[in-house]
Amino acid sequence: MTQASSIPSFDQASAKRMQAILDNKTKPLGSLGRLEELAVALAGITASTQLDFGSKAIVLAAADHGVARKGVSLYPSEVTRQMVLNFMAGGAAVNVLARHAGAKVVVVDAGVAGGSFAPMPGFYDRKQGGGQGSADLSAGPAMTFEQAKACLAAGAEVVADLAKQGVKMVGLGEMGIGNTTPSSAIAAVVMELAVEEVTGRGTGLDVEAWQKKVAVIQQAIAVNRPDPQDGMDLLVKVGGFEIGVLAGVILEAAKRRMPVMLDGFISGAAALVAYRIDPACKHYLLAGHQSVEIGHRRIHEFLGLKPLLQLDLRLGEGTGAAMAFTVVDAACKIVAEMATFDSAGVSQEKSGKDAFDTKEA
Amino acid sequence: MTQASSIPSFDQASAKRMQAILDNKTKPLGSLGRLEELAVALAGITASTQLDFGSKAIVLAAADHGVARKGVSLYPSEVTRQMVLNFMAGGAAVNVLARHAGAKVVVVDAGVAGGSFAPMPGFYDRKQGGGQGSADLSAGPAMTFEQAKACLAAGAEVVADLAKQGVKMVGLGEMGIGNTTPSSAIAAVVMELAVEEVTGRGTGLDVEAWQKKVAVIQQAIAVNRPDPQDGMDLLVKVGGFEIGVLAGVILEAAKRRMPVMLDGFISGAAALVAYRIDPACKHYLLAGHQSVEIGHRRIHEFLGLKPLLQLDLRLGEGTGAAMAFTVVDAACKIVAEMATFDSAGVSQEKSGKDAFDTKEA
Repeated sequence: MTQASSIPSFDQASAKRMQAILDNKTKPLGSLGRLEELAVALAGITASTQLDFGSKAIVLAAADHGVARKGVSLYPSEVTRQMVLNFMAGGAAVNVLARHAGAKVVVVDAGVAGGSFAPMPGFYDRKQGGGQGSADLSAGPAMTFEQAKACLAAGAEVVADLAKQGVKMVGLGEMGIGNTTPSSAIAAVVMELAVEEVTGRGTGLDVEAWQKKVAVIQQAIAVNRPDPQDGMDLLVKVGGFEIGVLAGVILEAAKRRMPVMLDGFISGAAALVAYRIDPACKHYLLAGHQSVEIGHRRIHEFLGLKPLLQLDLRLGEGTGAAMAFTVVDAACKIVAEMATFDSAGVSQEKSGKDAFDTKEA
Repeated sequence: MTQASSIPSFDQASAKRMQAILDNKTKPLGSLGRLEELAVALAGITASTQLDFGSKAIVLAAADHGVARKGVSLYPSEVTRQMVLNFMAGGAAVNVLARHAGAKVVVVDAGVAGGSFAPMPGFYDRKQGGGQGSADLSAGPAMTFEQAKACLAAGAEVVADLAKQGVKMVGLGEMGIGNTTPSSAIAAVVMELAVEEVTGRGTGLDVEAWQKKVAVIQQAIAVNRPDPQDGMDLLVKVGGFEIGVLAGVILEAAKRRMPVMLDGFISGAAALVAYRIDPACKHYLLAGHQSVEIGHRRIHEFLGLKPLLQLDLRLGEGTGAAMAFTVVDAACKIVAEMATFDSAGVSQEKSGKDAFDTKEA
């Protein structure tokens, strides 16, 4: 980026004020661990100690991938389409977990193979690729520069629309048969790691199929030579339409001081793309969940993120982000509802506070 | 235990039926990780695939400890009392997090120093020790056999009362300045570990104070020589009143096929006592949270429990159990609300299901 970032900086002053508020609650200093860290981060992100994330949404972007034809997975791309219908009907795991967290799910057709879906509330038709999915990235760029720009713009547009509806926090979700392949490619290139280090076997891939997938990803990188420092180049050459939309969501949310809850590995790849487009977005990212996927852990380390949950989810869709929303609500309620030493008549003098400091479990 | 256990056995058939139900949901097999494991465990515990834990309660037992006078902590025992008032007023962390989880908090005065608290709904006056707290366990038994029995009975009574009110799951909570000392003693004896291996420094203890605490615990074990196989002997000699009440809660809940959500290190010590009284209770235990406390991890390993959350909480009170309740609700909603392959029109033939199996993140 040669131009100045339009993303505001993390507000250290609000973060400090939040820690002071927490230190005055009736508990040992720091004893609410990650809940306190989260409240402090949210204060810095929103530049406010009045945390209000009552309205949250999972932005679930779906797309198909030309590389899926190369046998990186065992399944038909039709499943992407079938699952989009499942998301729209409210029956998928992410729908259940988002309802559990009091969040809505909006679905973006970023480039699902086949024709357009029937319009419905909470659905955004932003199909790229003319119903063919992205191009096979092992043979050349996955998409054109214009398509990449359109994906980012679509993500930004969805965030703007949600903000208008009062949404204060977004979580990322995705569906796209084959999309771990571009995600691994992006992860390997950006973090300068061997493809093997960021490519998982999933549940279904045996060693042979995994080796084939690794070879396809290596070929994609060799053919395209994406610039590890250039987010647009990464997206065009080894990305995917849904990854582009999610990167657009991140960048627009960051501009609006709206926290972004990451989900699994694919959302992490979108975060790497967004980070390379504008590194200032990093402070607006929260890691909802650590999947078992090896590349996912590396992305969190690279971005300096500590995941809130480790529930061994490996589903994507935004399920980890939705679960993490409940932790956000808990942190906000601690700030809003918990008594202070004064209000509860618990001694805050040195003796009293030291006392709490010795409590351990 | 020479007599036969009155705790029913874990129902493998229901657990298997639950896994079959989950395998028919629109997701890769096993891809909801810990949520699936939890649903399966809950089916086995309740002997039903109709999971219903709408009404949950944290049983928060509070007591004081004679050993606190030995300088194992830096604080006055008054804080136990002040915090009980805070719990009853609804302003403590556990109150906030229990409300967040839709659970109630009931408070048991198991032996808080000082006079009786004013009665109120959800409060149980089962004070042992005549307002003096337990005896100093570094000089002799912490309590009499009759007191230990009364604590177990109080825990059982509270569970029976809650069951009558429709409560389907209990979480453990505790407050008691000094109560990590008996907990470490119990953990060291039962698991046959050095005291240093199960004794934490907390936030406030420097090396010198920690060494002093370790020495007090070692003395307690040397003076009392508790039988590691005998739960009652452990409770009498190196226990605490709130630990006894929580052990009673566990044993009664297990008899009723009611799942018990553990909290931090002290609730883990109560689980060890209950386990030594009747090992059959083990299958009714769920580990809500892994605290940073070293001894806590050892207890989970010993009991074969995998904690649901790792949020670096070190507060006790039942805060970890309350947070874990939200994960229970998520698991139950997955079972109840998620579409099946059939209902969603997602292909369940080999091709379709294999497809899902390759999804990784």
